[in-house]
Amino acid sequence: MPKQVDHRGRREAIARALWRVVEQRGVSHLTMRVVAQEAGISLGQLQHYFASRASMLSFAMDFASERTSLRVEQGLKKLGDCPHPRDVLRLTLAEMLPLHGDARAASRMSAAYVLEALHDDSVHEQARRSLVQGRALVEQLVREAVADGHIDSDRDPATETNLLLALTGFTPLIELDVIGPQDALTAIDTHLDRLFGGNARNA
Amino acid sequence: MPKQVDHRGRREAIARALWRVVEQRGVSHLTMRVVAQEAGISLGQLQHYFASRASMLSFAMDFASERTSLRVEQGLKKLGDCPHPRDVLRLTLAEMLPLHGDARAASRMSAAYVLEALHDDSVHEQARRSLVQGRALVEQLVREAVADGHIDSDRDPATETNLLLALTGFTPLIELDVIGPQDALTAIDTHLDRLFGGNARNA
Repeated sequence: MPKQVDHRGRREAIARALWRVVEQRGVSHLTMRVVAQEAGISLGQLQHYFASRASMLSFAMDFASERTSLRVEQGLKKLGDCPHPRDVLRLTLAEMLPLHGDARAASRMSAAYVLEALHDDSVHEQARRSLVQGRALVEQLVREAVADGHIDSDRDPATETNLLLALTGFTPLIELDVIGPQDALTAIDTHLDRLFGGNARNA
Repeated sequence: MPKQVDHRGRREAIARALWRVVEQRGVSHLTMRVVAQEAGISLGQLQHYFASRASMLSFAMDFASERTSLRVEQGLKKLGDCPHPRDVLRLTLAEMLPLHGDARAASRMSAAYVLEALHDDSVHEQARRSLVQGRALVEQLVREAVADGHIDSDRDPATETNLLLALTGFTPLIELDVIGPQDALTAIDTHLDRLFGGNARNA
């Protein structure tokens, strides 16, 4: 019987090697040769899994997004059966910031990926699709919160969604120690308190 | 008489060549060799002006910041002698977004620079200092607006400053066409209207 190879596992191991390169050495060192070395495989083996740098990056980015979603889901379970939309948004926004190891890796991947997308049409399309989907989920949550009376009906859901997503703009400020993690969370809470009328936390 | 060389001019020309590489090919192609080629000089000549990739990047980033400040100053002149703090903030925030050629180059430089800073201590320190200074200017403006009664005194200037700076988080959404420039400006206006109590525009 031929040896069974866990292809999904191999690709994930490669994605993690890619993250380590981004995390430890920076995106300017992100070549297929360096990733192969970090993953402990030959360049040929790496090319068996990924035909190009772009397809390798795409997979690593998808994998990072999946892991972020998983962390958010796990956090939501702790909030109980019917979490308040404010708490869902806070959890989601906090997980998008570089506040701990895994989130930091995903955040740096994402920043590198956006820069890459500006010069590669296939990466651009994939990155755009992923952001559009994420944005749509947040907008749906905002619309439901408006419908359920948690957010004033005179708020424009599209603009509120954009303002919520802009809060990921804390990323460079946190990464460069211009503000601390607690400053970012305080600002997010202040913004959410205003969006939900100030009396919705743990409601 | 020896030929006079305009060193500042040379360095600026190199910085512009570096921008073009970032803008057109992406930060992953940003090596001293590529920049020299783009600037039409030899690698040796480039090394005469910049001893390392990091020092070249630092100069290019400083130059981009100077040009952004200049654009803001020019915009402020059009607002007259005593511009309203809301208008000053709007102008400043808009110039930090990739909404036109020069601002886009500066914004992409800045994103590349933050990623670079994570793996280079000297770049980190310079990038941090620059962001801390920029943040301090915005906080001073917010504090003055509170003192002058333009912003409610129950607002915390530090948190409001952080929320204003977070609005640069529109950058990836604009770059990947997830939201349009007008969506970003509408969201900025909405945020500023709330900060200034909704009745301060062109006051």
